[in-house]
Order: sequence, then structure tokens, then C-alpha cells
Amino acid sequence: MMRSWVESANTEETDFPLENLPLGVFTTGEEAARIGMAIGDRVLDLRGAARAGLFDTLDAEVRKSLEASVLNALMALGRDASRELRARVQELLADAAAQRFMSGLLHLQGAVQMCMPVVVGDYTDFYASIHHATRVGRMLRPDNPLPQSYKYLPIGYHGRASSLLASGAPIRRPWGQFRRSGEVAPCFAPTEALDYELEVGFFIGRGNLPGEPVAMADAEAHLFGACLLNDWSARDIQSWEYQPLGPFLGKNFATTISPWVVTMEALEPFRVPAPVRADGEPAVLPHLAGKENGRRGGIDLQLEVWLRTAQMRRNGQAAVQLSAANLRDLYWTPLQMLVHHTSNGCNLRAGDLFATGTVSGAEDGGRGCLLEITQRGTEPLLLPNGEQRLWLEDGDEVTLRGFCAAEGQRRIGFGACIGVVRGAGVFPLMV
Amino acid sequence: MMRSWVESANTEETDFPLENLPLGVFTTGEEAARIGMAIGDRVLDLRGAARAGLFDTLDAEVRKSLEASVLNALMALGRDASRELRARVQELLADAAAQRFMSGLLHLQGAVQMCMPVVVGDYTDFYASIHHATRVGRMLRPDNPLPQSYKYLPIGYHGRASSLLASGAPIRRPWGQFRRSGEVAPCFAPTEALDYELEVGFFIGRGNLPGEPVAMADAEAHLFGACLLNDWSARDIQSWEYQPLGPFLGKNFATTISPWVVTMEALEPFRVPAPVRADGEPAVLPHLAGKENGRRGGIDLQLEVWLRTAQMRRNGQAAVQLSAANLRDLYWTPLQMLVHHTSNGCNLRAGDLFATGTVSGAEDGGRGCLLEITQRGTEPLLLPNGEQRLWLEDGDEVTLRGFCAAEGQRRIGFGACIGVVRGAGVFPLMV
Repeated sequence: MMRSWVESANTEETDFPLENLPLGVFTTGEEAARIGMAIGDRVLDLRGAARAGLFDTLDAEVRKSLEASVLNALMALGRDASRELRARVQELLADAAAQRFMSGLLHLQGAVQMCMPVVVGDYTDFYASIHHATRVGRMLRPDNPLPQSYKYLPIGYHGRASSLLASGAPIRRPWGQFRRSGEVAPCFAPTEALDYELEVGFFIGRGNLPGEPVAMADAEAHLFGACLLNDWSARDIQSWEYQPLGPFLGKNFATTISPWVVTMEALEPFRVPAPVRADGEPAVLPHLAGKENGRRGGIDLQLEVWLRTAQMRRNGQAAVQLSAANLRDLYWTPLQMLVHHTSNGCNLRAGDLFATGTVSGAEDGGRGCLLEITQRGTEPLLLPNGEQRLWLEDGDEVTLRGFCAAEGQRRIGFGACIGVVRGAGVFPLMV
Repeated sequence: MMRSWVESANTEETDFPLENLPLGVFTTGEEAARIGMAIGDRVLDLRGAARAGLFDTLDAEVRKSLEASVLNALMALGRDASRELRARVQELLADAAAQRFMSGLLHLQGAVQMCMPVVVGDYTDFYASIHHATRVGRMLRPDNPLPQSYKYLPIGYHGRASSLLASGAPIRRPWGQFRRSGEVAPCFAPTEALDYELEVGFFIGRGNLPGEPVAMADAEAHLFGACLLNDWSARDIQSWEYQPLGPFLGKNFATTISPWVVTMEALEPFRVPAPVRADGEPAVLPHLAGKENGRRGGIDLQLEVWLRTAQMRRNGQAAVQLSAANLRDLYWTPLQMLVHHTSNGCNLRAGDLFATGTVSGAEDGGRGCLLEITQRGTEPLLLPNGEQRLWLEDGDEVTLRGFCAAEGQRRIGFGACIGVVRGAGVFPLMV
């Protein structure tokens, strides 16, 4: 375990020890947004560090990428650059002699504003948790819950990049078209079935050219890092619109991501074998299989959802945990998602984002969205303070948390991914 | 009818008279890409014109936007800027005295390379032709071809922005996973059902903020212009993957757009009323209706698909026309698509693109893709030279054309949207 002269980075409970060093973009309010790294309860100004000459031993391209106000240029340089930067910062933050000239580059996390860390060109969402897909499918097709292709390919679709939001941005309840139970014609009204989805997002580092698929043996080199992602969903809008082209307005009003990008280097000690398929399950097609994926395709990442209602906040009550799941239980690994995504020649660019879909576990405690927990709005979730929820209400605050933990390893945390639901307001037409 | 001193702009057959002036981005090969306007068989260098002081009477923001190598900044300025620029160029190109100092700013279109005109943040595709939706739906559900929501909202989904290509870029036949007829397990192979789709795309000018829907009365102000769009599709990959989240790898390997953005100003004389709904059809919900849409929501734009096979090229034979349709026959108008898209608060940004989905007519001659023409690959299309097609073959060249024409009006053309199919090549894993 490494020790830093930033004392808050040496505690057991911190998300951000010297072994993590996730990247983000922050502003102090006075200056323009710039790239930083989380260390304990501080954020290190990487642009300032570069300008102070602390990265003069690094590749000039790395230093140049730190002048930007988003991570895309750094991501495009690939894993070697990321590894080089990380090693240098670890060296500096471990060296007591560096404290003297570095303390001016550290800000309290509580005193800065985190921004969208990346300009996301394209955002893709998968459906990789078989526990989620099975529970949801069972509501519609009890005898045959999984789509026919489920065990052959990681099902995915394109989401909206423009409405990706940094943690903390308010979520306005969307208006939309949906059909109330028992009615023939649809209405247009604020959604009555607002949900969250517990997901993990992966950012692309080095891209691939159009028409050039990425082989499994090369896939790892194209991953840059990960974040938490809340794929807010309006279930009534979604179920009215989704045939035959998939989710659209039921999803694209807002998607929240956690502000820190945890690098693949930090996740390294928590890589685990891909799930082994049971007897009788179809074999993975050759281009989606491979030694690399079998040996370390999975990630042992614990995930949690917490809810704090307006009433809880008023009464000073703490948030309530709604679920706990682990990323290693996905049916498809991030490497398989990436290889599948490019298998037709689709090009991924630096900063592109793909998410896992709702991460749910096998047990009832691992249901990653209200759709699963309340059985599509039919079985109320009882909260300890006596409140009930079928779906999210205005004022509800949803927080996702994630961390890697293992015997003999420092905790690698993701920080929080937070959103508070705001009222729908008046639709402009009707003003 | 206006006359220009660029004589080729005064012919009856040109796509680009003085009344059109579409915007694009070109390079001469020697210099970096820059913004231009088509006039007859020439392209006018707008950056050069601005630097030469010809736009000094225009808003400084307009001049500044012409320094960019894509149209996004100009688009963001909205319709007034576009109108101002257009009027000034019309004045210059009509004034014989301007020829002396402007001829150096004109390049032969045949001597320049057209580039992607816009950085597209998000690309959305709709399904707005009821003739297309009905024919496709009938293949799967003969008694109930249209999705339940079809007449209540313009169905749409998110496509891939990274794989948008400028006209002329080769289309590599995608590899993919699909299930051959009669087989239980899927294979992974180059697609055996490659198709084109005849579509029209619309670019957003002024955007809207997250959480702020656009009312129908304001929708027109957010449209900037239009292009032709070929949504290449691999039908076998698509039908294996699309449940329940919609098309993904069956579509996102390539989407070709025509290089010229025809402005809404040029389309103005061809605006027509939105289709009137027959008795018994559901009324349009209030937020998707409105006077503006009723009076001029449609566009009278004729569209054509042409095919030239490798054999035709070898034998010096001309392309064969496969279909003809008109944009005015869509069930939903571009204004309705835009209003629906933002109705949940989804933000559209300058340069974002939405397309109509396959534009098909009611008659057999108006089928906008091979899926319709060959009844899902079961009835061969016979070509005049004796060749047959169920789907596209390597070497096939597909060209989309579009133009507005009316008594007493100059023809407003879109130019061509071209792609040639290339072989799939070897999948990297198997090398």
C-alpha cells in the first residue's frame, strides 16, 4: 500500500488513495475548467502541475493534452500515456519533498465544481446483466423472458450524447406521450413512472477507424476508464414508444455520470475471469471469446443505489440503500461489448462512452432499478420512514456508489453519481 | 427567376441556381477544408470571400463563422444569419460588376473534394413514411402492420454519429452475427442482405437547452437545412439483433449524406400543407399540431434512387432508376419530428441531424429500399441488363438524388449522395 503526504488519501474509507488517481474536470468558479486528479479529499490541478514543470519528463503530447478543458485528447493518446501520467503523479504525491511546491496545486474537493469530463461523441448502452434482462423479460413474456439473441451477442443500442449530465445536475421530470392502463388513446403529460438505472460506463481511449473491427486480443488497449452512470428512464413513455426501434424519449432526457473517470490501470488488481457458461448454454462465438477475456474480462466492482426523499432531507434522515450488485456478474464483459460494437466496422472515437445497462444481481437485493423492485409499479417499495414508492417522486435524490475492495488491496472508489428529481413544470405550448 | 454571371447557374437542369446556394465544406487538395456555396457547376469559397471584405456589411459573427472548417458555428447563429448571408451572395453573384474580383474565389466542383460539412453531435433517425412502415410491418404482421403508436407519434431512435460519411466514401460490407433461414444458431460472416434506404436529413440550427421543449410555433426557427441520406442497412444483422432495443450494428457501420446542405430558405417556395388525416384516424395531439405545421409542415421534394452495378460500369451502361418518391407524402412532418424530439426536454444542438427514415410512396414505384422492392429478399429485382438483385452486391453503386420543382420556380437540387459497396475483407481475428 502506498502512502501519500496528502493524509486524507491514506485512510481506509477514502475512495481516492494513491492507487486510484481518477481523472476529472473541475473549476474553482474563478478560473476556466481544467483537468484534475482526485487524491483523498483533494483534487490536484494537472494543468497547473504541467505548467509548473512537474511533468517535464513525460511525453510532450501528454503535457499538451492537459491544457484542454476535457479529457478527450489525453484519452486519444491511449494506455501508455495514461500509465506514464499516473506513475509520475504517484511518485510526486508519495515524495514528501514535493509537498512544498505542490500544495498550491491542491484544492479541497468540496470547494470546487466538477464538470462533464469528456465531450462524448457517441453514447451506447448495452443490456449485459442477465439478471436484469430476465426479470424485465419475465414481466412481458413469463415463459420466454430472454430475447432469442441474448446469449449470442451483447444487445445494445445508441443513446443520446447531448443529454449526458455531470453528477449533481437536476433531473427535470419529462413530459411525454404514454397510454394509461385501461385507456385506448395515449395522453401527453409528465411521466408517471420515472425510474433510475444503476449502470457503469466505459470510455474509449484510442479509437478504431471506420471499417476496421477491433480483435479481442487488442480490445483492452482501446479502453481508457470507467464511471458510474444513471440511465434515468420514464417507463410509461418507453413502453408506448419502443416498438419497433427501441427506447428514445423514454431515456434521452437525461443520463447522469459520476465526475471521476477511474482508469483501467487503477482497476487492474480487480480484474477477474469472465463468467463461465453452464453446460447446455451456447458457446461464445470465436470473435467474442479469447484468452484475454476468459482470464480477466470481468471486473470485481461493487455497486450500490441509495435513495433520499425530500421528506428524509427535511427530517435530517440519511439515505436508504435500495440495492447492491457487482459488475462481475454481467453476462457479457466490457471487452466483449467493445469487440461486438466494432465487429461490423463501426468506429469508436476517443471519449466515446458505452454503458453496461442496468447492473442487477441474482438476489432480490440486487435489483438495479425500480422497474424490477416494484414489479413494474405494482408492488410498493416500503421505506423505513413509512414512505412508499412505486416510481420516483419530485424531490427524490438518487445516488449511485461504486468501489473495488479486496483483501490486501486499497479501496478504489468511484465517488458518487447524484441526481435530484425536479418537477415537470408547464409545457411551453400550454402557457 | 434570378440570373447570375456564373452562366452554368442559369440553365434549367442545374441543381444549383442562384435561388439555391447550398452550403458545404470543400478542399482543393492544397489548402485546408473551408466553407463554400454551390453555384451552377462552381463552388464559391466563402472564407475567401469574407477575407476579401465582401461580407463586411454582414454581422461580424457570420464572418467569424466562415473561418471554421465545418458549418456548426454558422448553423448555431440561426435563420437570420443564414438569410443575411444568402441575400448578400445572391446580390454579388447577380451583379456583373462583381465578376472581376470574384472569379478567383470560384472553383470547378469537379476539381474539388467535398468533405463532411458538419460535426454531428447526435444523429436521430425516424420512421415517418407510413408507406414504408406499412410494407415492412406487413412482412412480419400481415393483419396488423403498423405499431400501435404509429399514428400518435413519429417513431424514432438514435443512430451513430461517428460513422456518418460524406458522399463518395466507399461502403465496406459489414461482418456481423445473423441467423440463416432454417438454422438454429447464428453465424458470424459478411452480411448477406445489404440494403440502402432513401432518406432526407435535417440539420438543427439554433439549439434548445436541456429540459426546455420546443413548441410547434417556434420549431421552424430551429431547422437550418436539409441533405439526402442513405441509411445503409444489413437486414440479416438487424433482424437478429433488434429485439428489444432496436437497430444497432445492422445500421451503424455507415450512413452516407450528400455534401450540400440546402437551406430552409431555398426550400421556402416548396413548403406544402401537412397531410390531412382521414376520417377515423386519430387526431394529432395538440403539442404536435398547430397552424404552422398545418399550413406548411410538408416539403414538396422529389427523391430518386439509382443503381449502377459493377457490370454496368464495365460495359459503359448508365445507372438504372429503382424508385421515385416525394417527401410530402410522409405521415409526419419535419416540424413534428423536431417538436416530438424535444417534447421530453431532450436538447438538440447546432449541427445535430435527424433523418426521416426510408421515404417510400404509396405505389410500387415508390419503394425506397430493397427490403420493400424484393419483399425481404424473396422476389428478385430484374435489371435491364439481365442482372438480378435480392440485395446489394460488391461493386454496386447507389446514388440518391433529390430536387424541388414547380411551375414558375427554379429547380432546387440536392446534388448526389453516392456510395459504392466494397468487399468485406478478412475479419482481423481470423488473419
